[in-house]
Amino acid sequence: MAGQLILLRHGQSQWNLENRFTGWVDVDLTDTGRDEARNAGRLLAEDGIRFDVAFTSVLQRAIKTMWLALEEMEQPWVEVERHWRLNERHYGALQGLDKAETAEKHGEEQVHVWRRSYDTPPPEMDRDDPGHPCHDPRYAKLDVRALPGTESLALTLDRVLPFWHDAIAPRLKAGDNVLVAAHGNSLRALVKYLDGVSDDEITGLNIPTGIPLRYKLDDELNALESAYLGDADAAEKAADAVANQAKGK
Amino acid sequence: MAGQLILLRHGQSQWNLENRFTGWVDVDLTDTGRDEARNAGRLLAEDGIRFDVAFTSVLQRAIKTMWLALEEMEQPWVEVERHWRLNERHYGALQGLDKAETAEKHGEEQVHVWRRSYDTPPPEMDRDDPGHPCHDPRYAKLDVRALPGTESLALTLDRVLPFWHDAIAPRLKAGDNVLVAAHGNSLRALVKYLDGVSDDEITGLNIPTGIPLRYKLDDELNALESAYLGDADAAEKAADAVANQAKGK
Repeated sequence: MAGQLILLRHGQSQWNLENRFTGWVDVDLTDTGRDEARNAGRLLAEDGIRFDVAFTSVLQRAIKTMWLALEEMEQPWVEVERHWRLNERHYGALQGLDKAETAEKHGEEQVHVWRRSYDTPPPEMDRDDPGHPCHDPRYAKLDVRALPGTESLALTLDRVLPFWHDAIAPRLKAGDNVLVAAHGNSLRALVKYLDGVSDDEITGLNIPTGIPLRYKLDDELNALESAYLGDADAAEKAADAVANQAKGK
Repeated sequence: MAGQLILLRHGQSQWNLENRFTGWVDVDLTDTGRDEARNAGRLLAEDGIRFDVAFTSVLQRAIKTMWLALEEMEQPWVEVERHWRLNERHYGALQGLDKAETAEKHGEEQVHVWRRSYDTPPPEMDRDDPGHPCHDPRYAKLDVRALPGTESLALTLDRVLPFWHDAIAPRLKAGDNVLVAAHGNSLRALVKYLDGVSDDEITGLNIPTGIPLRYKLDDELNALESAYLGDADAAEKAADAVANQAKGK
């Protein structure tokens, strides 16, 4: 029997709070974000699930969400693999910009397209930009052509899926319970794949922060059911909050 | 050129504080122990070393020391592998007992032999004992015959070395900088191996908690030099404190 899959989106980061485009910029969690992570750990502890392996990105807001949740669950000894393929969508040249200012400059409609269209990436970040991942030591061992300068959700899915197939799926098929602590868009990409969500529908799908999403899968890893842990109303409200934030303030 | 090797012994745990035999019992760090871990991270940050991989045990006092040090270094994205072969020496049937009470019951001399002889293990823990590792889910996938019921330092070295050869050494030979956050005796075993310390001498060698120990190695991984980071006096005092604690209070 396939193991259970739990998806967990990191809590509030400093730039969520400041309403700036983050992408691959490695900002830290806020205190609120840390509380969200601990709360996720408590929901998992109450559920009683035991993990065999945990996957996360190479960005600290996801890694620390994982640490805090594992600590709360008293399972810090669980094997953890970090991988760049679980990173947030690369937000291109928009990374670091204030969302409201960007909307003033480029127009609400254009920003909405960059944020929510399935396959239109934002303007590309130049490789000479010191913020391009090719200048970051954590990616130094990769072929630079693997590193994005911008990504749509479609491109994010394209680079998440190889890691799903090579690293995550084999563990689930072996019966292991798997935790994936990652980001709004890398998780939306996985949900799109697992639930067969259409390109149109995925643009309206929001994953709340800090609330574990459990998938039960058949032996072929088809999704049998999925549900947020804890209070269903709380999960819905949290997803609405994310959707509203996406509209800009 | 071989990478640098940094060994880091975890800080004070709850049972260090309570003067109880710990071994494989998964006790947490105290606040002092957490401070020691952060301080180790600061020493490493000041040094400027960048790690390619970090290894630790499956016991939370070592894992959390690693987390706190990596966070302090702002390198939480470094790959981490946890492995039972880096666990503390298994203290057999003494695990959980008060050190002073054990000395009263069995005599100072006998306890000194169990603690400090190179190859005399303490009395074995029975497999039916609920504290035996074969009942712990984190070891459920191992052949139970791999799991110790007691260990001398010699036996600890025997089970640490395969992990050195298979996991740590290849990374160092590839030029990677490696952090190993582990325990008094799993690290003494490594130091014995790297420095060719005799069976007699190793019994008098103490590794201070929370002070990174750096090895520079040649291409064949022979130790060229080793030194504690930071203030040399502080390292010596910390090692003396460990030695004195070993004499009981």
